[in-house]
Amino acid sequence: MESPVAVNVNDTEHPRVVIVGGGFAGIAVARGLAGSEADVIVVDQHNFHTFQPLLYQVATAGLEPADVAYPIRTIFRNDSNVAFRHGRVTAIDLEAKEVLLADGPHLAYDHLVLASGASAEFFGVPGAAQYSLPLYTLADARHLRNRLLLTLEERDASPENYPPGVTFVVVGGGPTGVETSGSVRELLDICVRRDGLNIDLEQSHVILVDLGDRVLPAFPMSASTYAAKILENRHITLRLGVQVKEVTSTGVVLSDGTTIEAAGVIWAAGVSARGTLAAEALPHQPGPQGRVRVEHDLSVLEHPDVWAIGDAAAVLRGAGDEVCPQLAPVAIQSGKHCAEQILNVLKGKPTKSFKYHDKGMMATIGRRAAVAKMQRGPVIKGTLGWLAWLTLHLFYLVGFRNRFRVLTNWCWRYLDWPSGPRLIVADAETAP
Amino acid sequence: MESPVAVNVNDTEHPRVVIVGGGFAGIAVARGLAGSEADVIVVDQHNFHTFQPLLYQVATAGLEPADVAYPIRTIFRNDSNVAFRHGRVTAIDLEAKEVLLADGPHLAYDHLVLASGASAEFFGVPGAAQYSLPLYTLADARHLRNRLLLTLEERDASPENYPPGVTFVVVGGGPTGVETSGSVRELLDICVRRDGLNIDLEQSHVILVDLGDRVLPAFPMSASTYAAKILENRHITLRLGVQVKEVTSTGVVLSDGTTIEAAGVIWAAGVSARGTLAAEALPHQPGPQGRVRVEHDLSVLEHPDVWAIGDAAAVLRGAGDEVCPQLAPVAIQSGKHCAEQILNVLKGKPTKSFKYHDKGMMATIGRRAAVAKMQRGPVIKGTLGWLAWLTLHLFYLVGFRNRFRVLTNWCWRYLDWPSGPRLIVADAETAP
Repeated sequence: MESPVAVNVNDTEHPRVVIVGGGFAGIAVARGLAGSEADVIVVDQHNFHTFQPLLYQVATAGLEPADVAYPIRTIFRNDSNVAFRHGRVTAIDLEAKEVLLADGPHLAYDHLVLASGASAEFFGVPGAAQYSLPLYTLADARHLRNRLLLTLEERDASPENYPPGVTFVVVGGGPTGVETSGSVRELLDICVRRDGLNIDLEQSHVILVDLGDRVLPAFPMSASTYAAKILENRHITLRLGVQVKEVTSTGVVLSDGTTIEAAGVIWAAGVSARGTLAAEALPHQPGPQGRVRVEHDLSVLEHPDVWAIGDAAAVLRGAGDEVCPQLAPVAIQSGKHCAEQILNVLKGKPTKSFKYHDKGMMATIGRRAAVAKMQRGPVIKGTLGWLAWLTLHLFYLVGFRNRFRVLTNWCWRYLDWPSGPRLIVADAETAP
Repeated sequence: MESPVAVNVNDTEHPRVVIVGGGFAGIAVARGLAGSEADVIVVDQHNFHTFQPLLYQVATAGLEPADVAYPIRTIFRNDSNVAFRHGRVTAIDLEAKEVLLADGPHLAYDHLVLASGASAEFFGVPGAAQYSLPLYTLADARHLRNRLLLTLEERDASPENYPPGVTFVVVGGGPTGVETSGSVRELLDICVRRDGLNIDLEQSHVILVDLGDRVLPAFPMSASTYAAKILENRHITLRLGVQVKEVTSTGVVLSDGTTIEAAGVIWAAGVSARGTLAAEALPHQPGPQGRVRVEHDLSVLEHPDVWAIGDAAAVLRGAGDEVCPQLAPVAIQSGKHCAEQILNVLKGKPTKSFKYHDKGMMATIGRRAAVAKMQRGPVIKGTLGWLAWLTLHLFYLVGFRNRFRVLTNWCWRYLDWPSGPRLIVADAETAP
């Protein structure tokens, strides 16, 4: 058999930009290049873009997978210079300027954008990769939902095999951990109070564990205090200032020597680019969290025709060497900036440095409770914060159809909250 | 290890009715027994009821899995005497009056209802079970959707590996075959015209094969003629009067000696209860399509405390020995009748014979085209038939939420038909 040849050699006069990854960052680049002279190809092994900030609601059966996913082809259906390629990139040849796809062909590029994201960071905690449930992809959200609902069904079906009540541990006190623990507790209440599962709520616990001394450490102290109060009002137990030493098949071991028996451990303690294609494919040492080191203009060190953005890249915050957090706004802004710089290079103009505009941050704790901190302005809490959170998330959700469906779901949940679609999705994959 | 004991021995004063299966038939029995003196347990390995008549729309990405599935617990949340047990029944002990569950315990019953459905009937056609794609369960619909969309992505990505165009074969000219072929053709058009997949529509074919000399053979001739005309107008090729002799990995071989190369073969040629638990567990010979033989009151021959209904049972149409077709209305009506007879037995009253009320039938061929034949009345065609079809299906769909979502989807599709959620669902199950 002959070795695969580069069947997709770029034989047009248009420079070709290959974007690896259709997340917030990759989509932002492609949007920025839509209508330009460049031929743009977005490569992703999923045919859809995922709205990650709402994954925890898919995991806790408040939303359906299709509500937070949108076909990438549909996003660019009116942009004749943007194409989608369903596939997985397995290697990058920086010399030949080609990416290799798992199903065979090489794809030649003039500019390559690495927007391949990250994965859960387990900090070397024994058992964490094996036993805990991360929440970064739609597949993660589906697995977590199956685990939560199947656990509750098992407890209901065979109470004699288990201690009374059920406990879930959430590791990480950032926005994802806070949002997920609030949502898991709501699911538990709904399953018992409305679906009639025979589980003792008094003896059931959702326990949030974090090494720091407060939840939402990136927020002002008043927001952390508020969030802690709401969480405790909603029967979530906070175990702060302790570290998870080990995750086992039956729970977690903490640094203070205590052991928590748990039916599930949700890992929301951070993400890392280590082991991802972007981190492995480049010759130089990666930056913090295994992220690809980039210049101030977002091009990869020593490779002006390769760019790295979003969670995969150590995006510099401003003129100094401070690195941005791995957040959706950074992904979107770095993607937009990257598109502008590629256009500058194609026009023979000099590139510009990226500067992150921190517009603030928000986290929701459950129904009618959220905190929002605008960059300039006070901390907004409670119902008003929740409405701000809701509006912003709807605004950034891709596609009018998804916005409509999610808004409908939320109204429903608000007016009659138990009616969420608590389907065990794994059930739908097995034979009758 | 000790053998599992019947931990669920019925120690209350209430007679216990165990219903195996949460489809149309099983749900109808449980509804009929809600509020009665009986303790009712619905056992299903899926935690949701599936609205099978719309599965073809899930398969062709017009609806999402959650739109046609509804949690069984939620259906009965206000009925304190109806419980749900998530599990798979592996055996029935008619002497001890127990069913055995895959996860261990025995479940004692006073009355047992077998509503465990059927599966695709391949009529011994070589390769059919291995290579063709049936459409009976939600898992089937998801697999078919993945196959359709992945096939189109592969053709787009590597056109050099395939002949121009793409062909799908649908086996069976009944309502499911007609509905599915129309819907597959629509999906193909949408993917090419709106999503920009590089596939030659002129050289693409959807071919409906049936042994009979007309589609919709159970309908009046005028309905068949109309359906055939609409299908041909929509570029579906009819191959009538030929039999599928073999299904292979690359297509089908027909009885007239021709071979059709196809990227997928969809099997819509009928269902059978052969090999299902209900058929295997009983000592007597099964009836037509492997269905459980029942008395006129729907109790199983020689077992007055065991009942069989829906697709699993050879339900008798009336006083004679004519057997009902395997259709949703039969399942619903037999379920309702079964509940009434169990109540009669519990009250010491004699049971009554089942009589099927055929209210008519309908089939949709695509947008704004359907045929409906009321039992008394003319054949309704076209837009009016389509509206009748739409109204009836919305009426029977379980749950206001699902009705609302499906109606919204249909309005959307009607006004702006390409915006369906064409997500490759398998993508959401794999790691990033």
